[in-house]
Amino acid sequence: MEIKIRTAQPTDMKSVLQLIVELAVFEKEPDAVEVTVEELIDAGFGEEKQFECFVAEVEDEIVGMALVYFRFSTWKGRTLHLEDLVVRERMRGKGVGSVLYRKVMEYASEQKVKRVNWMVLDWNKVAIDFYEGTGANVLSNWWQVEMEEQALQEYLEQEL
Amino acid sequence: MEIKIRTAQPTDMKSVLQLIVELAVFEKEPDAVEVTVEELIDAGFGEEKQFECFVAEVEDEIVGMALVYFRFSTWKGRTLHLEDLVVRERMRGKGVGSVLYRKVMEYASEQKVKRVNWMVLDWNKVAIDFYEGTGANVLSNWWQVEMEEQALQEYLEQEL
Repeated sequence: MEIKIRTAQPTDMKSVLQLIVELAVFEKEPDAVEVTVEELIDAGFGEEKQFECFVAEVEDEIVGMALVYFRFSTWKGRTLHLEDLVVRERMRGKGVGSVLYRKVMEYASEQKVKRVNWMVLDWNKVAIDFYEGTGANVLSNWWQVEMEEQALQEYLEQEL
Repeated sequence: MEIKIRTAQPTDMKSVLQLIVELAVFEKEPDAVEVTVEELIDAGFGEEKQFECFVAEVEDEIVGMALVYFRFSTWKGRTLHLEDLVVRERMRGKGVGSVLYRKVMEYASEQKVKRVNWMVLDWNKVAIDFYEGTGANVLSNWWQVEMEEQALQEYLEQEL
């Protein structure tokens, strides 16, 4: 089976969105995805480019994707954040994920970032084992904090 | 005590770096900071702007800072990431942090982001309580994964 990795084009964003939804379902948040194909095209290929995306193809069909962007660590400098890496469900376990993962690491190396970072769910043992096997560190002591749009507005309406 | 908040200038980066180091010490990683003043100036004010920084002044002295940048959530769209919020040790407990935090939330609202996100150490109960009191959610089930530069090179040298 030949797996081809290439940089995503605007016309791939429909397939990319399907993969984003597949990942959200896997992560038990099926209703979390609010972005649209148009927003992905605008964010990925518009004036202010917000991410880079790679797609994996098998027999000309998109079967996986990895989406990354740069961040700035006040400790290290420029880093690469891997936001999503997804393989279509029926294609899992065939090495597509490993090839995409390696592509992300190659890109990070080319871009000379100081670190690659991403998040993993604590119950996703298969992924955690894979990441650790490649030399990455999994940290359980840093918690993520999120202020949602609605809560943000309510907070700003309060007196300081 | 009057606390003045303003957008940081290149000449503030020396004070900002001191605050970054103070935070790293507080977070028990005193040797983690590798960035230099020059790198901060380049990253914050160069051709490819990588962050926005706000400083808090009391009597014309910088006593705190907040450093933010945009990220892209495949679920929500554009978000704001709060990388660091630090108050000089001897000025803690005087409301400087609250004013900086509010400034970040105001900026997020102006920029119409879908969410503000940041990280907190699991033992930092004072911070966690403060964040939750403002309406933010603290998630302990998403773990951070980091691939450092050295490990990345070693991984890429292996056969797939």
